[in-house]
Amino acid sequence: MIITLKPDTPSEAADALLARISETGLRALHMPGDDRVVLGALGEASVVAELALESHPHVASVEPILAPYKLVSRELHPHDTVIPLGRSAIGGRDFCVIAGPCAVETPDQLRATARAVKNGGAVALRAGAYKPRTSPYSFQGHGPDGLQLLSEAGREIGLPIVTEVMEIADVDLVAAHADIVQVGARNMQNFALLRALGRIGKPILLKRGFAARIEDLLLAAEYILAEGNDQVILCERGIRTFETAIRNTLDLAAVPYIKARTHLPVLVDPSHGTGIRDLVLPMSLAAAACGADGLLVEVHEDPAVAWSDGEQSLYPAQFDALMAKLGALLPILGRRLA
Amino acid sequence: MIITLKPDTPSEAADALLARISETGLRALHMPGDDRVVLGALGEASVVAELALESHPHVASVEPILAPYKLVSRELHPHDTVIPLGRSAIGGRDFCVIAGPCAVETPDQLRATARAVKNGGAVALRAGAYKPRTSPYSFQGHGPDGLQLLSEAGREIGLPIVTEVMEIADVDLVAAHADIVQVGARNMQNFALLRALGRIGKPILLKRGFAARIEDLLLAAEYILAEGNDQVILCERGIRTFETAIRNTLDLAAVPYIKARTHLPVLVDPSHGTGIRDLVLPMSLAAAACGADGLLVEVHEDPAVAWSDGEQSLYPAQFDALMAKLGALLPILGRRLA
Amino acid sequence: MIITLKPDTPSEAADALLARISETGLRALHMPGDDRVVLGALGEASVVAELALESHPHVASVEPILAPYKLVSRELHPHDTVIPLGRSAIGGRDFCVIAGPCAVETPDQLRATARAVKNGGAVALRAGAYKPRTSPYSFQGHGPDGLQLLSEAGREIGLPIVTEVMEIADVDLVAAHADIVQVGARNMQNFALLRALGRIGKPILLKRGFAARIEDLLLAAEYILAEGNDQVILCERGIRTFETAIRNTLDLAAVPYIKARTHLPVLVDPSHGTGIRDLVLPMSLAAAACGADGLLVEVHEDPAVAWSDGEQSLYPAQFDALMAKLGALLPILGRRLA
Amino acid sequence: MIITLKPDTPSEAADALLARISETGLRALHMPGDDRVVLGALGEASVVAELALESHPHVASVEPILAPYKLVSRELHPHDTVIPLGRSAIGGRDFCVIAGPCAVETPDQLRATARAVKNGGAVALRAGAYKPRTSPYSFQGHGPDGLQLLSEAGREIGLPIVTEVMEIADVDLVAAHADIVQVGARNMQNFALLRALGRIGKPILLKRGFAARIEDLLLAAEYILAEGNDQVILCERGIRTFETAIRNTLDLAAVPYIKARTHLPVLVDPSHGTGIRDLVLPMSLAAAACGADGLLVEVHEDPAVAWSDGEQSLYPAQFDALMAKLGALLPILGRRLA
Repeated sequence: MIITLKPDTPSEAADALLARISETGLRALHMPGDDRVVLGALGEASVVAELALESHPHVASVEPILAPYKLVSRELHPHDTVIPLGRSAIGGRDFCVIAGPCAVETPDQLRATARAVKNGGAVALRAGAYKPRTSPYSFQGHGPDGLQLLSEAGREIGLPIVTEVMEIADVDLVAAHADIVQVGARNMQNFALLRALGRIGKPILLKRGFAARIEDLLLAAEYILAEGNDQVILCERGIRTFETAIRNTLDLAAVPYIKARTHLPVLVDPSHGTGIRDLVLPMSLAAAACGADGLLVEVHEDPAVAWSDGEQSLYPAQFDALMAKLGALLPILGRRLA
Repeated sequence: MIITLKPDTPSEAADALLARISETGLRALHMPGDDRVVLGALGEASVVAELALESHPHVASVEPILAPYKLVSRELHPHDTVIPLGRSAIGGRDFCVIAGPCAVETPDQLRATARAVKNGGAVALRAGAYKPRTSPYSFQGHGPDGLQLLSEAGREIGLPIVTEVMEIADVDLVAAHADIVQVGARNMQNFALLRALGRIGKPILLKRGFAARIEDLLLAAEYILAEGNDQVILCERGIRTFETAIRNTLDLAAVPYIKARTHLPVLVDPSHGTGIRDLVLPMSLAAAACGADGLLVEVHEDPAVAWSDGEQSLYPAQFDALMAKLGALLPILGRRLA
Repeated sequence: MIITLKPDTPSEAADALLARISETGLRALHMPGDDRVVLGALGEASVVAELALESHPHVASVEPILAPYKLVSRELHPHDTVIPLGRSAIGGRDFCVIAGPCAVETPDQLRATARAVKNGGAVALRAGAYKPRTSPYSFQGHGPDGLQLLSEAGREIGLPIVTEVMEIADVDLVAAHADIVQVGARNMQNFALLRALGRIGKPILLKRGFAARIEDLLLAAEYILAEGNDQVILCERGIRTFETAIRNTLDLAAVPYIKARTHLPVLVDPSHGTGIRDLVLPMSLAAAACGADGLLVEVHEDPAVAWSDGEQSLYPAQFDALMAKLGALLPILGRRLA
Repeated sequence: MIITLKPDTPSEAADALLARISETGLRALHMPGDDRVVLGALGEASVVAELALESHPHVASVEPILAPYKLVSRELHPHDTVIPLGRSAIGGRDFCVIAGPCAVETPDQLRATARAVKNGGAVALRAGAYKPRTSPYSFQGHGPDGLQLLSEAGREIGLPIVTEVMEIADVDLVAAHADIVQVGARNMQNFALLRALGRIGKPILLKRGFAARIEDLLLAAEYILAEGNDQVILCERGIRTFETAIRNTLDLAAVPYIKARTHLPVLVDPSHGTGIRDLVLPMSLAAAACGADGLLVEVHEDPAVAWSDGEQSLYPAQFDALMAKLGALLPILGRRLA
């Protein structure tokens, strides 16, 4: 329920109401605004009803949250969530490009690619130390050593780090190295992992699952927020359809649809979203045009020898060209390339 | 087969070769270029082989057309096809917006909407006189009377007309009224209709089917070209996926993918592609950003009372806003709003 | 609306009510049952309301037809439709297997395959004279000559004929040769063709489209019934999904779902539904087990040299084995192999 | 690689070869057969090549394993895997029905339902103590208390227990209570969990993911076998498609397709696979008809008050009817109801 207090409600009265809500076992939320205070009460509707908040002298209105997702919804939280990242922030006016190789391969590969994306203008470096691979016989990432290399590369070049975590046992280690912790598409409904990430103090980048409806994605994010971490970034990365010419179907319409319904920032991953290098530039521009807050782009210093995803990784010169195009396009859209 | 002639081949020799190709029952194509003449021979590979063209003194090379679609492929026809439309043309530098109501309803509705889209800057008026409806009990369009109203409205306002044909018996009548004849998604593989449209002298707007792979769409276009009509415009209008929040999944990555492989222009229909009015503007900008040659947009003078598709039709003021945004964005992309 | 008359209503009163319904422009239906007479009134609900049938002395109840499809629904027509076919009938206790090659190729191929399916126990011979092919360069069928060969083969061997029609211009010719006229998946929403088939006196076999929801299929059937032809057989033949190992995803659950909601018979095509010869037998048994009224199976005297669909066609000996298994299984399911 | 030894190879020579394979870091497999000994070498093809096994005097042939999955493939392991379960076994001649409520709700509900499925003839009791729910606000299961109740109910009634594990931290506890440990569709590519389950001594029931291709499912199983646990049971439970009338699309053709390529048993879950109670019986029969090794069926003593999935749970009397039908059908298919 969304409980809007009357304009002149003293803060003690708000506190007392919050305490009453909490006592019943409901989750109580406090959202002070410029002109009015809004409280939230999440849980069984019948329990909320017993509180008879409508008749409370300081309560202006009590309305249900219509969406199945609550903390994630704009109904409760109308303003955009903005998440600081290095010299910029995701979710505000800046359009943030996070880039890097699919996987940490070697120190040289990583350093060269990190330099390339830094030069191109990326705000953060992304690479995988833990790689979710369909086959157990494919390269699974360097693990802790890869994390070490990655955070060193980030420090050297002066870029924050984004990297994926695949299991609860690794959450602390990954969070110690990463500035943003990524959850991959295959783990979008690994609810135990989501809950664990809801209890850490780092932003979470949550990628949409292959077959996840938009509502599923928002409810997955709700798992993280419900545990107390409201620093969640969503990422559209293509869904599985009958089309075979392109690896996935990039569902860009999901971007404005989601941004109208949730306050969380939304990135687009045109690399996994298409699987084809030549489609990364046009789909990056399209993502910017339809309101995405940034991109996750695979770049490799030499895609021809990449250990994974080479066919969708940009060459450094292509990344530079992409950034130049974005830099020209974004001001027309009221955004600024971070 | 693509038969490239040597630079100094006399035209009589080219003609003689074309005649030899035709005599075998193969389809012969003549594509004179600036610096070289290219001939095409479509049909059974074994028949082509018997001609032993490689050893002909004027032949520089004989190479297979790798794509399953031939006339539609850039392999045979590297330059963009540009199709004149009113004061502009589709497929060149201009970005063309075709707009109008879902259906011809009443003379007043049509005239008011035609005026609105003309004022907004549309290059053509689109409305349906024949409506393919899932249920036989839904409004099926006014038929010939609707065509009459539509062409009168177009003439009055000074806009060319785009409208759908659903069966061969109506092709001549529709072609008499329309400047561009549309084939709807449900008829994309109505091969008899495609063949009939391959024999008329009007451009064809071919919409992608709900479950059509890109290759299916290009082969459907090939049916039209194979009959002699090379004025074909393709249209991405959303595919069917598991997502239910949005009516269809607009596959924008198909646009640059198709444009790299075929010389035909590609439009995007963000109205059917999303089914949600608020998504039309962002997805229109995204379509422009990823290289579409124009849009097909539903506009209604009063969407609240539209007989069909009201929830995805723009209000005239929204259409004006869309055109203003496109006008600002397109020059950055090297295009111009027609 | 479903208008149930009181038990003792004289037939003149029923006729008078039907006339009143017709006069308003509604479609009036007369469904006399063993114990009660039911009338139907199809059209605008507001027009039905004006008739105030509830208060008529002979009317027991007036209830809306809840399904969007009306004539096709069991609400209006609770008993199974049974369609005679040769020595048997589709939709009753008999399980009918219709078999034959994908296409009419040569007189010898057709005759040999016809003999094989007759010996195996098929109740009808199916083959295509008009072939809907994704590419215009694939074999398109022998057309009228193929029809001629097919009906001769059927007459010789003593089997009724099932064959596809692709356009309105061919409907009369195809109907003159065929005992059942098939509409292919790509034409499921070719509404003009459906309407034309609604006006002929032959049963129609309507195949589900690649991306057709069950409701779309039933509404497509409604187009045929609404024109007056109530001899419609539905056919599940696989839908398009993300799975690539198997050509289509055979949606067998659609069979009991549809049979609960409509009185029309439902066949299954395991050949197109899987595209893999070795899956035809198990999926045929599964189709029988979940309540299908029969099968459409591709058989070729020599699949290795078939001009199309060879990889999914059964060898005659495999067809015999399938029929033997069906013959053993069906009695357990309360059915009988026709 | 599949290394087939000559018929008279002494076992010391086989051991020596296995040792040589292991020394290079390859995974060595020993598969003694009735008439020949087969060795496997899994890993980099180039490393295998260096061993030059073809020229070894006891080696008859060295052939690559063509499938991307290896241990799971029939190429390496042609005979069916049979997994004991209570008084029966999964994967042999017996058709095994595992049944129970979606979730452990209360001791009374569980006991009543356990009794019902035991009476009906189920070979194991299945219920969830940990429930993967799309929303964090839905009932998540009773956790350890639910496990306790479940194993008590199983012991009382004399049925083995099947229950789901959602995270690595719970693996030991769940394995202590369960006879078969289930991995749900959402966790099919939770590779860390799969690896952990590869190290326990209990059979694993692996459900196909919503958007998992068959190859993805088999590679997920390969993760478990690669860690040493070869007791894996696969389960088809419906995939996500555009159809909305039915909750999922049950891909029954996957059953014979998978069984031809892998030696692992395959169950079908018609309850989640359709989401509609009335479809459970026909689809259960269809699953048996196309070669499934058994079923996972939701039964509830009173579905109308079930805390989750009530609309797809069978009433006890319906379960009895299903078992009776299966009992009659299976002998015709060469199977026996366990």
